[in-house]
Amino acid sequence: MSRDRIAKVQKSLVAHKIGALLVSDFYNILYLTGFKTSVPEEHEAFLLVTKKEAVLFTDRRYKPNYKPFLFYSREKRLTGHLEEISKKSKVKKIGIEGDSLTVSEYQTLSKKLPKLSFIATVGVVMEQRQIKDSGEIEKIRQACKLTDQCLSAISKTIKVGQTEKEVAFNIEQWAKKRGCDLAFSPQVASGRNTAVIHYEPKDSNRRIQKNSLILIDIGLKYKDYCSDVSRMFVVGTPTKKQQDSYVKLLQVEENVLKKIANGKSLKEVDDFCRNEIKKNGLPDFFHATGHGVGLDVHEPPVVSFRDERMIREGNVFAIEPGAYFDGEFGMRIEDTIVILKNKVEVLTKFPKKLLQL
Amino acid sequence: MSRDRIAKVQKSLVAHKIGALLVSDFYNILYLTGFKTSVPEEHEAFLLVTKKEAVLFTDRRYKPNYKPFLFYSREKRLTGHLEEISKKSKVKKIGIEGDSLTVSEYQTLSKKLPKLSFIATVGVVMEQRQIKDSGEIEKIRQACKLTDQCLSAISKTIKVGQTEKEVAFNIEQWAKKRGCDLAFSPQVASGRNTAVIHYEPKDSNRRIQKNSLILIDIGLKYKDYCSDVSRMFVVGTPTKKQQDSYVKLLQVEENVLKKIANGKSLKEVDDFCRNEIKKNGLPDFFHATGHGVGLDVHEPPVVSFRDERMIREGNVFAIEPGAYFDGEFGMRIEDTIVILKNKVEVLTKFPKKLLQL
Repeated sequence: MSRDRIAKVQKSLVAHKIGALLVSDFYNILYLTGFKTSVPEEHEAFLLVTKKEAVLFTDRRYKPNYKPFLFYSREKRLTGHLEEISKKSKVKKIGIEGDSLTVSEYQTLSKKLPKLSFIATVGVVMEQRQIKDSGEIEKIRQACKLTDQCLSAISKTIKVGQTEKEVAFNIEQWAKKRGCDLAFSPQVASGRNTAVIHYEPKDSNRRIQKNSLILIDIGLKYKDYCSDVSRMFVVGTPTKKQQDSYVKLLQVEENVLKKIANGKSLKEVDDFCRNEIKKNGLPDFFHATGHGVGLDVHEPPVVSFRDERMIREGNVFAIEPGAYFDGEFGMRIEDTIVILKNKVEVLTKFPKKLLQL
Repeated sequence: MSRDRIAKVQKSLVAHKIGALLVSDFYNILYLTGFKTSVPEEHEAFLLVTKKEAVLFTDRRYKPNYKPFLFYSREKRLTGHLEEISKKSKVKKIGIEGDSLTVSEYQTLSKKLPKLSFIATVGVVMEQRQIKDSGEIEKIRQACKLTDQCLSAISKTIKVGQTEKEVAFNIEQWAKKRGCDLAFSPQVASGRNTAVIHYEPKDSNRRIQKNSLILIDIGLKYKDYCSDVSRMFVVGTPTKKQQDSYVKLLQVEENVLKKIANGKSLKEVDDFCRNEIKKNGLPDFFHATGHGVGLDVHEPPVVSFRDERMIREGNVFAIEPGAYFDGEFGMRIEDTIVILKNKVEVLTKFPKKLLQL
């Protein structure tokens, strides 16, 4: 499988006017080779894709299961290897990943290898990653199933008096006991905190109060692939405003799921969602309508008014409209979905009525 | 406190020949303002430090407790704000953080703001962060104390037949129950896996066997500050080779802790350590002798032959010599230490004899 993916990158080199591509992004390397380093944000491996080969570079702390690979040595760092291979393959222009390489890394390459030119590219591998194949979709489906099971188990344990932190901890525990990685740190907010979009329960000792809303936004991984889901709960009875807003927001979310499709533009769907929000008298929300989900939990394409490109078969999105009433409460409903040729499959199946616990 | 830190950055602008510094690194922003975004590797906030002010930019999903701050809007993105402030403050040259900003981000700034020049800088804030003040040292001391307590509690629970994963899970659980963040995912390796330097127990179902070595490398956080420690255990009896190697490695580590001091060079200490390893007939190890520890668990300065700079009062290091016998077993002993004026304080105090469980 990864050989096919590398072959596609090799095919695209000419269009990008480069003789080779130096892949530095953790998820792109994982996608192309199956190899992963310990810390995604540190560049502890690089993959050089030339027309004829794709060589992995890393250090001796790792034992790659991908071939061919070369270790950096005290004498020959990445630049030494690049020099040698470019000479051998007669490469003059090497594409780098502009969204991943830092300015310092770029300057080091240019300075140490003055005979080569390094061209910033964007999205060469991501272009491919955006379109999930059936194997990837199945992994995301499994990740969503696990997330559904987790929500179902955890929602039964939520009680008045528990801290948000404890609920988040129980979610982590549920996942870890099953050998599951989390796609991101669980967000559990209650009462007024539900209006805080990027809420971190660990910074608070807030306890769940009677009749207060609870927002849970979680994602588990299955074989490196992510899921992302948000649901609302209430222990006791919601206020009329909460109940009414929820019904409206759910209507908006379901309308967006009906609207989104292969061939529509990202902007069109974002505009549609914000228009639905407005029509329903809900406040506009300060985040995108949705984002791609795959090896990374936030990846292109983003369902935003900034992007006029088309939605395509094989795109996987988390769709997440929200309504936030500052200082009062907030709500978000989020599903992971896959765009198929003629339909949309919703992969997260946990019920969407405002669940009273 | 953060005002003093910002003042130091402002003072250094002239030396760097810039009118302002655009801080993008998550930990640098946290260090200067106390503000943090959700995902360290995503640039969801920027701090512009001019001679007279330091303005934080972020999006409306956040509620900064730092002032002054400005939100990006649909109309005015970061570049719009930068343009306005540079005009007002008569700034022409803005330093960017070369180790943090990506090539694409740099290109966007240069393209959208052609009247300004963006200069890549390295370490402007990190220079300051490397020297910990007494408040920071106290937080790291507390983080180390928690890590000692965790090792003490967990080592009592390790049993033959347990999976490495379960031990790692118990460590996480211990920390989370106390509201502690982990500085990194716990490494628990047993038997042959101890020879794998970046070992991830979650990818294995290996169970702890009788008479096998166990390597535990963990770090907990206290108020955002990290600790980092590695200890070796054995359930049962070690082999003679294991016992002998351990005694030698411990001697090496303790000699390094005696050698390292204010005013010595980083290279000198790394060379000394490798020489001690060699003298003791142990195999060379493929990682640095040590690294800085602070808000980030791996930060400059690195105790490596590549760096000839001086060790200074207020540096905090994790010192971690190792001995890895490929395919057989490996061992590492690691302590977090602080360099004081005339002495070194070892902050991790968990006993260092090869603990038989």
